[in-house]
Amino acid sequence: MENMKENEYLSKLNHSCAHLMAQAVKHIYPNALFWVGPVIEEGFYYDMDLGGVTLTEEDLEKISKEMKKISKDGKRIIREEISKEEALEKFKNDPYKIDLIENFKEGEVISCYSQGDFTDLCRGPHVESVKECKHFKLLKFSGSYYKGDPKNKVLQRIYGVCLPSEEELSQYLEELEDRKLRDHRKIGKEQELFMNHELVGAGMPLWLPNGAIIRKELENYIYEKEKKLGYLHVYTPCVGTVNLYKTSGHWDHYKENMFPKMQVDDEEFVLRPMNCPHHMLVYKNKPHSYRDLPIRIGEFATDFRYEASGAVKGLERVRCMCQNDAHLFVTKEQIKEEFQKVVRLILDVYQDFGIKNYKFRLSLRDKNDKEKYFDDDEMWDNAENKLREVLNDLKVDYFEAIGEAAFYGPKLDVEVKPAVGPDVTLSTCQLDFLLPRRFDLTYIDSNGEKQVPVVLHRAIFGTFDRFTAFLIEEVKGIFPLWLSPTQINVIPVNNEYHLEYAKEIFDLLQDLGYRVKLDSREEKLSYKMRESVIQKIPVTVILGQKEMDSSSISYRVYGSEETITVSKEEFLNYLKERIEKKN
Amino acid sequence: MENMKENEYLSKLNHSCAHLMAQAVKHIYPNALFWVGPVIEEGFYYDMDLGGVTLTEEDLEKISKEMKKISKDGKRIIREEISKEEALEKFKNDPYKIDLIENFKEGEVISCYSQGDFTDLCRGPHVESVKECKHFKLLKFSGSYYKGDPKNKVLQRIYGVCLPSEEELSQYLEELEDRKLRDHRKIGKEQELFMNHELVGAGMPLWLPNGAIIRKELENYIYEKEKKLGYLHVYTPCVGTVNLYKTSGHWDHYKENMFPKMQVDDEEFVLRPMNCPHHMLVYKNKPHSYRDLPIRIGEFATDFRYEASGAVKGLERVRCMCQNDAHLFVTKEQIKEEFQKVVRLILDVYQDFGIKNYKFRLSLRDKNDKEKYFDDDEMWDNAENKLREVLNDLKVDYFEAIGEAAFYGPKLDVEVKPAVGPDVTLSTCQLDFLLPRRFDLTYIDSNGEKQVPVVLHRAIFGTFDRFTAFLIEEVKGIFPLWLSPTQINVIPVNNEYHLEYAKEIFDLLQDLGYRVKLDSREEKLSYKMRESVIQKIPVTVILGQKEMDSSSISYRVYGSEETITVSKEEFLNYLKERIEKKN
Repeated sequence: MENMKENEYLSKLNHSCAHLMAQAVKHIYPNALFWVGPVIEEGFYYDMDLGGVTLTEEDLEKISKEMKKISKDGKRIIREEISKEEALEKFKNDPYKIDLIENFKEGEVISCYSQGDFTDLCRGPHVESVKECKHFKLLKFSGSYYKGDPKNKVLQRIYGVCLPSEEELSQYLEELEDRKLRDHRKIGKEQELFMNHELVGAGMPLWLPNGAIIRKELENYIYEKEKKLGYLHVYTPCVGTVNLYKTSGHWDHYKENMFPKMQVDDEEFVLRPMNCPHHMLVYKNKPHSYRDLPIRIGEFATDFRYEASGAVKGLERVRCMCQNDAHLFVTKEQIKEEFQKVVRLILDVYQDFGIKNYKFRLSLRDKNDKEKYFDDDEMWDNAENKLREVLNDLKVDYFEAIGEAAFYGPKLDVEVKPAVGPDVTLSTCQLDFLLPRRFDLTYIDSNGEKQVPVVLHRAIFGTFDRFTAFLIEEVKGIFPLWLSPTQINVIPVNNEYHLEYAKEIFDLLQDLGYRVKLDSREEKLSYKMRESVIQKIPVTVILGQKEMDSSSISYRVYGSEETITVSKEEFLNYLKERIEKKN
Repeated sequence: MENMKENEYLSKLNHSCAHLMAQAVKHIYPNALFWVGPVIEEGFYYDMDLGGVTLTEEDLEKISKEMKKISKDGKRIIREEISKEEALEKFKNDPYKIDLIENFKEGEVISCYSQGDFTDLCRGPHVESVKECKHFKLLKFSGSYYKGDPKNKVLQRIYGVCLPSEEELSQYLEELEDRKLRDHRKIGKEQELFMNHELVGAGMPLWLPNGAIIRKELENYIYEKEKKLGYLHVYTPCVGTVNLYKTSGHWDHYKENMFPKMQVDDEEFVLRPMNCPHHMLVYKNKPHSYRDLPIRIGEFATDFRYEASGAVKGLERVRCMCQNDAHLFVTKEQIKEEFQKVVRLILDVYQDFGIKNYKFRLSLRDKNDKEKYFDDDEMWDNAENKLREVLNDLKVDYFEAIGEAAFYGPKLDVEVKPAVGPDVTLSTCQLDFLLPRRFDLTYIDSNGEKQVPVVLHRAIFGTFDRFTAFLIEEVKGIFPLWLSPTQINVIPVNNEYHLEYAKEIFDLLQDLGYRVKLDSREEKLSYKMRESVIQKIPVTVILGQKEMDSSSISYRVYGSEETITVSKEEFLNYLKERIEKKN
């Protein structure tokens, strides 16, 4: 989806359309005064003082109609440059413009843009003619405080967007609608997945029971996968001492992303931004032989990173996150095999989640830059070649980013194209030649010599937070059966006759571990079924006389109008199969 | 087990025995000088300057023999009071005594104790005669810096203990040995359950893979129990703002137990000492009707509490802990039923863990003290009566502690008598009339009126950390099958012939989800079997020709010398049954 601020022509077009809107408003409200009308990611807005008027939907239509008329007239947009004195004189009856003009330096040139009977103070640039602003849509309106200060007067703000053609406009509006519907913050609120509260703090979401079910399922899912691959899971505290992060190097290179330190007696603690150092210490807890390697330490690790409070967003961008993290300690010779296993795991997981639109980005060093990279050419060459071989062997679609490797080793990122918005990096696998040295990690090789292991940092889901945000937007809140907070809704056709049978089925399903709801309210069947759909419950079971008499089950799958009647056994098989297939 | 410092006679006895030891040392090393010789929980020690001598086991025996001799002699212990000047004169050749004497004020009376040829500066009191110090044991020796300062000279320290009779001494020594063997720090190290590291910080244990398995099993266990009881689990961040804890009251009343605050832009964050406030916000996230109640919010919640670095101990006393916490939001009328369910859950869990030696402590208010308790007599009376009724109905062994209730409500604690050491409080259930008011929580009752819910704070395991420490010491590191990090050890009798069959059985068990080890090292069978016992693996499977030919399985249970041979199916049933029975 286009970002209006990032495309030069679209930016001009939307800014001109803001002027066009102001002109139309002036025709309808001759006393209207205008504050600012910037271009934003989704189009433009203009803040206006309409005297006492509070806008309504009808006003928007009227303004829109007037804009069409002016646009058809096709007046040229003309730039004029005037001095600060001239500007102050020209706009002397407009306190908002005077406010703006006073911010200009003495002697600075001020530009005005005119189109027919309308002139506005503006830096520009603008398009040639109002004709170009034909394909627009006024999106919404709201009140907004003058200069954002609640002590000030409320202005009227109208949002709109303008595109070069009717086709582009309607496609854009569709995408906008889709993005709104998918927004994980909106769905998160509707479905009670998570919440924020100022008393807990910005960027610190609380996972509500429904969201916690999804997260726990994700945890169980990846835990089982990792267990089968020989990962050893640990729990480590989400703090460390400042000395820990001095040892790892984070204190020197990553401090601006960390929370401030806490002095406790003679120790300095800090919320950890990463848990690699903890895992290094776990490795170091006992001596190792080459026979013990690879050692794979995994953790669902809580980390904290500083983000500006304005930058945090739902579960997507947070200050407290839970990583699906692991560190693999391997010999040089094991790099290839372990890396391959990580890539296979990524592919395996993506298949289970139906993630198809992704590309692998392999960040390598720039051989000619001897400063920027850890100095061990043989190690680099070996590792880079092995990584390339693995991706080639697995026939994975990847591209190489030369010079993009970290100082301490090459890296693989998986960039996924989501349903809306820009690409997201979900999974990563980063080789590290340096950190094991910083922590003085060793193993004894087959000749009895001390060697330094190589570390692979890897995350499959990335963080559970961001992955869940991604997932919500991918599935639009319609979760597959295995992840859905409520999996099955059981509705008796008539409480008087069928409630008992419904309870029997409810108990059966619950005992089998399904998350089931029994809707025994005194409401009409059709009403309850509609609600089941609104709540996006994957399977709705409807039990009436027919089902009771034949000990059978009728059910509807979310998104389908068809009611299917089967035996209990068949129904349980159907559920089991869907869970296994993860759909 | 007796604490020598807490019993007046035992304290005197041990202190006298320290003098007896010093006298014996002086007989053997005439130039010996003595620093301090205090009574400690486990007996006594004395720090001594023996010139260049470093003690050995043989020296201890020699000293012990000399002590017996002196004791048999039966000299009386005589107290004498002298002035500071006299003391300085008397001990003028002993720099250690001079150091001690200089700390006395001018004019203060100083006491000496003499027995035969030995006199020591000492506050006393002592027993009547060295005869009483007959039943002693010198336990161990070590070097110790003079005044604990590594820059100072190393003194020789000998530890010992003395009891009134040979029977009591040998029982005490047995208990001491048992306590040492059970110490969860020792077992935790041997079995690689957890570790500490100064770079992470004091009181911040890291759970190693083996310990993490136990913790995860405990989490899964209680999660399933709670799920069945209708608990809704959440994940909330282990920080909050200072304002959150001002709202809850913790900032005013609990601050000295909290970590220091962190300023981030315009927000003040603090590591949470308790997660109740987070759960209050979860409740408050939407309006509630009486029909929604009870609402049970559960979490495996990471909390942080300040402890002096000297007070932390293994997993038992930590600064970062994970609570098995829940908050039940109920109407006044639901207090009894919900409280009963909590008590039932406690009893249920204790039965699964074989915890039999416990008592319930019901903390109630003192009715006459109108200051100390939240002012709502009707609420208190109702709640206290209901709690009592539940305990009576369930025929639970409890005692009432009048005046021990918190300001905000009555409370139940379960005090468990562990295998060694003092009682521990594992489970608690605390009623709270106040916190819901502080957070302005409400529900709409059946008359459409706003009401304030009552909150039950409850924890079954307490913290996973302390419960695990308790469990390790109870079972002496011999975990029941379901909790054991390694459950089954498969040993082929001869790698050449039986490895394939062993691998087949290993795979079968692993696929079924068991934590299995295959010991295919080129070692003797007897050696491998011994090691399996040392590692405390619950079930050791031995597979040879007989087992291979008949597709059967031979196994030994930890603690038994009997080898049992059964069919695969019978073996799997045996495992399943043990897991189900939690033994």
